[in-house]
Amino acid sequence: MLTRALLLPAVVRALAEDLEGGDITTEATVELEAEATANASARSEVVVCGGDVFRAVFAEVDPKLEIATLAADGAVVRPGDVLWTVRGNARSILMGERTALNFVQRMTGIATLARKYVSALPPNVTTRITDTRKTTPGLRMLERYAVRTGGAHNHRDTLGSAVLIKDNHIVAAGGIGRAVARARMRAPHTSRVEVEVESLSQLDEALAAGADIVMLDNFTPSNIDAAVARAKGRALVEVSGGITLERVAALAKAGVDVISVGALTHSAPAADIGLDIVPSDTPAP
Amino acid sequence: MLTRALLLPAVVRALAEDLEGGDITTEATVELEAEATANASARSEVVVCGGDVFRAVFAEVDPKLEIATLAADGAVVRPGDVLWTVRGNARSILMGERTALNFVQRMTGIATLARKYVSALPPNVTTRITDTRKTTPGLRMLERYAVRTGGAHNHRDTLGSAVLIKDNHIVAAGGIGRAVARARMRAPHTSRVEVEVESLSQLDEALAAGADIVMLDNFTPSNIDAAVARAKGRALVEVSGGITLERVAALAKAGVDVISVGALTHSAPAADIGLDIVPSDTPAP
Amino acid sequence: MLTRALLLPAVVRALAEDLEGGDITTEATVELEAEATANASARSEVVVCGGDVFRAVFAEVDPKLEIATLAADGAVVRPGDVLWTVRGNARSILMGERTALNFVQRMTGIATLARKYVSALPPNVTTRITDTRKTTPGLRMLERYAVRTGGAHNHRDTLGSAVLIKDNHIVAAGGIGRAVARARMRAPHTSRVEVEVESLSQLDEALAAGADIVMLDNFTPSNIDAAVARAKGRALVEVSGGITLERVAALAKAGVDVISVGALTHSAPAADIGLDIVPSDTPAP
Amino acid sequence: MLTRALLLPAVVRALAEDLEGGDITTEATVELEAEATANASARSEVVVCGGDVFRAVFAEVDPKLEIATLAADGAVVRPGDVLWTVRGNARSILMGERTALNFVQRMTGIATLARKYVSALPPNVTTRITDTRKTTPGLRMLERYAVRTGGAHNHRDTLGSAVLIKDNHIVAAGGIGRAVARARMRAPHTSRVEVEVESLSQLDEALAAGADIVMLDNFTPSNIDAAVARAKGRALVEVSGGITLERVAALAKAGVDVISVGALTHSAPAADIGLDIVPSDTPAP
Amino acid sequence: MLTRALLLPAVVRALAEDLEGGDITTEATVELEAEATANASARSEVVVCGGDVFRAVFAEVDPKLEIATLAADGAVVRPGDVLWTVRGNARSILMGERTALNFVQRMTGIATLARKYVSALPPNVTTRITDTRKTTPGLRMLERYAVRTGGAHNHRDTLGSAVLIKDNHIVAAGGIGRAVARARMRAPHTSRVEVEVESLSQLDEALAAGADIVMLDNFTPSNIDAAVARAKGRALVEVSGGITLERVAALAKAGVDVISVGALTHSAPAADIGLDIVPSDTPAP
Amino acid sequence: MLTRALLLPAVVRALAEDLEGGDITTEATVELEAEATANASARSEVVVCGGDVFRAVFAEVDPKLEIATLAADGAVVRPGDVLWTVRGNARSILMGERTALNFVQRMTGIATLARKYVSALPPNVTTRITDTRKTTPGLRMLERYAVRTGGAHNHRDTLGSAVLIKDNHIVAAGGIGRAVARARMRAPHTSRVEVEVESLSQLDEALAAGADIVMLDNFTPSNIDAAVARAKGRALVEVSGGITLERVAALAKAGVDVISVGALTHSAPAADIGLDIVPSDTPAP
Repeated sequence: MLTRALLLPAVVRALAEDLEGGDITTEATVELEAEATANASARSEVVVCGGDVFRAVFAEVDPKLEIATLAADGAVVRPGDVLWTVRGNARSILMGERTALNFVQRMTGIATLARKYVSALPPNVTTRITDTRKTTPGLRMLERYAVRTGGAHNHRDTLGSAVLIKDNHIVAAGGIGRAVARARMRAPHTSRVEVEVESLSQLDEALAAGADIVMLDNFTPSNIDAAVARAKGRALVEVSGGITLERVAALAKAGVDVISVGALTHSAPAADIGLDIVPSDTPAP
Repeated sequence: MLTRALLLPAVVRALAEDLEGGDITTEATVELEAEATANASARSEVVVCGGDVFRAVFAEVDPKLEIATLAADGAVVRPGDVLWTVRGNARSILMGERTALNFVQRMTGIATLARKYVSALPPNVTTRITDTRKTTPGLRMLERYAVRTGGAHNHRDTLGSAVLIKDNHIVAAGGIGRAVARARMRAPHTSRVEVEVESLSQLDEALAAGADIVMLDNFTPSNIDAAVARAKGRALVEVSGGITLERVAALAKAGVDVISVGALTHSAPAADIGLDIVPSDTPAP
Repeated sequence: MLTRALLLPAVVRALAEDLEGGDITTEATVELEAEATANASARSEVVVCGGDVFRAVFAEVDPKLEIATLAADGAVVRPGDVLWTVRGNARSILMGERTALNFVQRMTGIATLARKYVSALPPNVTTRITDTRKTTPGLRMLERYAVRTGGAHNHRDTLGSAVLIKDNHIVAAGGIGRAVARARMRAPHTSRVEVEVESLSQLDEALAAGADIVMLDNFTPSNIDAAVARAKGRALVEVSGGITLERVAALAKAGVDVISVGALTHSAPAADIGLDIVPSDTPAP
Repeated sequence: MLTRALLLPAVVRALAEDLEGGDITTEATVELEAEATANASARSEVVVCGGDVFRAVFAEVDPKLEIATLAADGAVVRPGDVLWTVRGNARSILMGERTALNFVQRMTGIATLARKYVSALPPNVTTRITDTRKTTPGLRMLERYAVRTGGAHNHRDTLGSAVLIKDNHIVAAGGIGRAVARARMRAPHTSRVEVEVESLSQLDEALAAGADIVMLDNFTPSNIDAAVARAKGRALVEVSGGITLERVAALAKAGVDVISVGALTHSAPAADIGLDIVPSDTPAP
Repeated sequence: MLTRALLLPAVVRALAEDLEGGDITTEATVELEAEATANASARSEVVVCGGDVFRAVFAEVDPKLEIATLAADGAVVRPGDVLWTVRGNARSILMGERTALNFVQRMTGIATLARKYVSALPPNVTTRITDTRKTTPGLRMLERYAVRTGGAHNHRDTLGSAVLIKDNHIVAAGGIGRAVARARMRAPHTSRVEVEVESLSQLDEALAAGADIVMLDNFTPSNIDAAVARAKGRALVEVSGGITLERVAALAKAGVDVISVGALTHSAPAADIGLDIVPSDTPAP
Repeated sequence: MLTRALLLPAVVRALAEDLEGGDITTEATVELEAEATANASARSEVVVCGGDVFRAVFAEVDPKLEIATLAADGAVVRPGDVLWTVRGNARSILMGERTALNFVQRMTGIATLARKYVSALPPNVTTRITDTRKTTPGLRMLERYAVRTGGAHNHRDTLGSAVLIKDNHIVAAGGIGRAVARARMRAPHTSRVEVEVESLSQLDEALAAGADIVMLDNFTPSNIDAAVARAKGRALVEVSGGITLERVAALAKAGVDVISVGALTHSAPAADIGLDIVPSDTPAP
């Protein structure tokens, strides 16, 4: 569920990018009072995401447009399936089309990729796939929602919501032990403390310091096994960096708790979704 | 060249997404007065893009940071090459890191993909590769700049800057001839009129109506040849939709003037660029 | 048709200029629950413009106000004619009055002046009257709409939508030929290339370079005739700068294609439109 | 003196209207590193206004541009006089030119018109010329400043800063006496109470009710004389509505305290100010 | 009456502070379709304020929520009294709860404190209690409204709406007489001129200069009596600075016209208002 | 450390509230070029907070003003101590004074109250004092910083950063066990899960469900002792609601880990800080 008021600034900015000079093609060729119905449909199999944004874009162009949702966020649809229908003033539909599609193609692309990662997990594991903070500037809220819609989880939202100690922090603080202790003192008591480690000895330090989560950086498979064994019952184990779909199953079987995947948000290809005006003698679905 | 004042809203929004709650890790582990130098370097071969934005992000975090540019926008760099260097307060560097990288990874990813498309053109053709309006909501200005940085061209910026008549407009206007005539009347005299056509007969109609540009939709190679022959000297020929790198050379050889590629902006994978604090006993490049 | 979401920032800013401290007169003298009807009427003959903005202002003050449109945008009305009616809470009407009028007086003033210029064209010419980029900061979208409402045309919207090469550009590029060639390479293929020329020899250069449009700067009538003759069939001819109503007919008869008039937006006098509460024993029109 | 931080939103909005798609002409024809000097000069005699805004526009395009002020706000200059000089990157100058001129032409136009009205006052009177709330939406702060720069005065800034009781308020409150009493109770004690009257008998009512200011609506010259006589020592007398330059002297001689002129802001023609690149072999003034 | 469009920016900012990362607790534990009713009730005796803001917060979270007002702004309620009821989606109610309460607790706190000051006035005096410009940054409009809701008055809204000459101004202008004269010349004729004085001799200067209001700074009770006597019929007398509830009656009896109290807005404790979900078998009030 | 770019919107909004109509008193009485130095000093003993904001306000009024910091954030100062000095244009100083003070009086007031709570903790306890989400709308970032400056801690920043299950959530989820399990599934793995409990039996449920933190609601002292004993080693114990300074020591001695105090932000009285122009013959400190 996306809070509508928090969506609107992104929607209005996107419309302004496209429409402040009007739509000279549509104004020239479509009558002011013409009515139409248009279907937004998938061109390939995708996990649908972005209904609230689709609706908000068209409502900001013309509050009188009627939007029907035929596929809920999270649904898997097949090529040709209609996701949403827009009815009303034909000019308004054409003027909002590109902006609406730009949003939902991105969100659906992310949800679809997230689902692929989640589906790559073997059955009966508790490992979770998460996003990272590598989101598109200005769209973090929407992209994190798309990740959840695909069945994956979110990592920490912001630099203020949880602690993640990396090598630079360790150096600056003078060692893992001091870094964890200081972070524990400073962080809200509602936040966990995570430490990125580059070796088993750093792992031991982090566990001894009481880290709640350890993130393994470039560990070999055998070292991952060793790390999971040592951390068991003491801290969650996260693996991050260069995670491909192919590696997911093995990581999960190794007992890793969290696999974080930057590509979910920074490199998901746009889903192919089109908007077609329904010929006037064709009933809408 | 990006106008700094027009960049800033996107930069400030992105920082707010990450930093409004502070950076609890950095505040806990790094001394308030600590100084550092960090290098942003490419992890693979890329076409650099986004120096102005990189600089703006860090300047908004802390105006005292010093940024040096080692690779200009448009330069091709190899893995390990340093693109930009940041010196100053260590906390400020760590707090701006993710936001700065999120921008430049996207922009560099687009420039790199654009360059690939341009490089796929055979020598001695005048065909141009262009983007489309399928840009990320809120980032159109930056993404269009990245496309140019990669050596490709921009298509029309907005719905108000040029005419592109599609099938829905043709139906609404009652034929290509009327659509073109009405668009010509309505559009600024500085704008060209482009018509999307689905067949050779529609092409003939568009040419007869005086279209300045025709966009061929799903034409077979032989029909593209025929279209180019008929349009020669009368209108520019654009091909769009599902253009892969592999198709570019053949399209150019066929004499197409413009190849527009939505994927340049909607599906370019992020470039891999990292920021590393330089150990204090290592001189910066 | 103005996209409502894109209007709202200007409307809210204007209301904030007037109302953030409340309306102490109205709050003191008008009962909280009082109802009223008010007519916005023209005090002189004008071309109506701004109904969407009028409606938006009152809706932002109080969404329960009912607005009726009695004269559509573009209609010519006579002194005393009612353009719009507002009914509802009396305080809300009085609080929105000045802001609404400030918008529509300006827009109607521009539409009315544009109509005068268009009416000065002789019958059976294709010459068009256009605006320029000399618009009021922050109101370009509204003013360009008003120009169209008056029957005139828009020039290019922004510096990014079409090419207009002026003397400074010519000097910088090293001549008209190089300037046109470089602009053609850089500009979107959907944009035309226009060149401002100061003499017949420059005109010849521009035509030879393939300019799509030539703008004549300070040409004498006989030179305008010569220019039109030379450009015929090769480029559109635009005249700009110091155009008075009296000169329009002659310029059109000389065969000029475009007459651009900065005064349409930068010096149109406000139309005289007033808002009057209807005495309670008087039926609204 | 204009607070820079409060200017900026209007400046950035105006730049965004023009430049979000870049400046394709300038980028194509002017070298990235080219330097230039440009003079902004008056084409006719004007009262200069807007130096701070001129400076802010160019600073937002490129903070490295250097602006010199040759004529202070309020100065009277002759045709050809240089008001401000800009030096630095040639592209930056060309990209900011139109936006900067749009602001200062409007502001200088208003200051010049205000000065004309002030100059129409006979010597040795205390009558003041004021603006009204009929300002351009979004530019009230700048326009009120321009009015003062021309030597005229401001009326109340907002609906919350002072009381002005009009006929609708009188009807709503049930008479002038009650309206004034209620307004006095509600208004800040720092605000005066003004009443618009349509007859001498209403004037008497207003004076009896203790109005601080009376505004005469459509009074004949002889009634104005009578009104001034009755109000003398009891209230200030303001005249408003349809004030032409020609009427100013007579009104002042009649003893009117305030003449408010909506045209100062809603209908002042733009001043003619141009920006010219100085040929490189010409020294700047 | 608060203009809704002017409220919204503050409401949206506040929601963004709390909700941009979603509400992970509510999303996890409350079903998407669950419905609920919640009562906002006072925990102590207060003067209610903020109904419009309460309504706006929930409408921005979810426009389908229904809000009922059981106690109007300005009403005095007892502990346990329900002020407003919200019905609809349970998630939406929980997500807006804290933001809505943060607003109304502050506004009600201010109204309640203002009422205490007003109630401390003896019967049959015309002395008014006012706020100052010591308001919370970003919330001035709401806090001034709360002051009025509590029965007190507003002082000048902004630095532009009326004149208040303090010691620094007097020094800068070279004496009270010159300061008043210059302020009278510069200020809108709708504004009064107030002077802060530190002694009876300064008071005499201010009165002689024609000040409309004098503000007594740190006067002893006997000097206040003297000041009131001298100012009677010539200027309003205001007392400001360190006003406690206990001093109000004496100041009023001394004949002071205005008592301004910064604490009304800068130090009013938040009112205790809670929001409780009504158990499903309990009818709402 | 506050990120300057994220401060600015609040600063600019606050200046706009005060200064959009100019400062008519200062403009009338202070010469345009006058220079001054002013000291901001404490009127009582306080914990200083807000130097960055103080600096930002004056920089936004006039970037040429020089600000010196004499007391760092977090310092305890005595009445009369100077915290910051401003030098430069006298008008600029007077125009920014109120806005700057409104910020720092609030921030210093919060830091001072936080310090009182922290000082009430007995020596050698690990109990922390925290804020809540009961912050002033629009100022959460600043107020959380002020809490830390006073030596207290922050609670979770937003609804998206950690889980806090309250009674409504428990009812909705069907029991504590299910609520915790579902929240654990949904929440980022970097977030802890906190449960508010109303009885020892609920406490047992929460501990059994694996809550990381339990918040005791209205527990008697003996029940608090019992709760601490049961939770020891299993979960952190937080106490919230109606915490007075007097209760702090006993709660800490009872072994409570966290005491959260809404009053820190919603009811801290403003600190008394004044700004005084230094007479020109007095050296600044």
